[in-house]
Amino acid sequence: MSTEWLLHCAASLAQLEAGATASAAQLAQYFDLPAAYLAKQLQALVKAGALAATTGPRGGFRLARPASEITLLQIVEAVDGTSSPYECREIRQRGRGALPAEECRTPCILAEKMAEAHEAWRNSLATTSLADIIAALPPSAPPRTRLRLTGSS
Amino acid sequence: MSTEWLLHCAASLAQLEAGATASAAQLAQYFDLPAAYLAKQLQALVKAGALAATTGPRGGFRLARPASEITLLQIVEAVDGTSSPYECREIRQRGRGALPAEECRTPCILAEKMAEAHEAWRNSLATTSLADIIAALPPSAPPRTRLRLTGSS
Repeated sequence: MSTEWLLHCAASLAQLEAGATASAAQLAQYFDLPAAYLAKQLQALVKAGALAATTGPRGGFRLARPASEITLLQIVEAVDGTSSPYECREIRQRGRGALPAEECRTPCILAEKMAEAHEAWRNSLATTSLADIIAALPPSAPPRTRLRLTGSS
Repeated sequence: MSTEWLLHCAASLAQLEAGATASAAQLAQYFDLPAAYLAKQLQALVKAGALAATTGPRGGFRLARPASEITLLQIVEAVDGTSSPYECREIRQRGRGALPAEECRTPCILAEKMAEAHEAWRNSLATTSLADIIAALPPSAPPRTRLRLTGSS
């Protein structure tokens, strides 16, 4: 669920003027999300180097790098982690069919194929940047986003 | 966890002689897995058309189709379901930034990109069949699997 939130927050921040910021409270109001939980998730994007957080009365979040250099993969992995959902627990080494350890020095072919599929998923998300997302929006979207998110278009 | 179990069970059944079967109890012993839970998961593969279940004193499970016609995707989706792990709840239509419904007739570009990545993952798993997996094993593997799984090589 929060993957959707953070993708939309990052795409919204990518529509602000250079140097402008939006606070966690503004982003929460913009999407009607729980502010405290969202603020925690935004910090994960700061930690991952996608967002920068500024402090002070006009502080908030902005992109840490140009939108063309922030991929969907970086955002998704900042929220969900980098590990594959497939778990290999080496059952080939268990039970009556257990293979000896010396036959298990290379990864199991099934784990390899699952890892290849995960890489295909990662590569797909790595080819799309926030700049690509913004380029696909109608021209009316960025000024509207700025007005409703920060009060100034 | 059970994704790994069922991939290994299907790959083991693909190594049996034509017409031979292995019971849930035999598969559970072979991998040291909980038999009752495994039996339930094997039924999911029967339902998906990957395995056939035969009844009677020598009954058990076998592939429902040639190994070359059963893909890793079919097995994984039989166990884990076919939906993408990414959930789009249309937050673009919520809060202060809510888009009017008439601007949301096409899917959100972020949901589209996540769906593309899921398709890349699916396509990767759809290109590998159980026959490909068996072909990657050492020649000593199938007789060994048959002996330890069913008692006859």
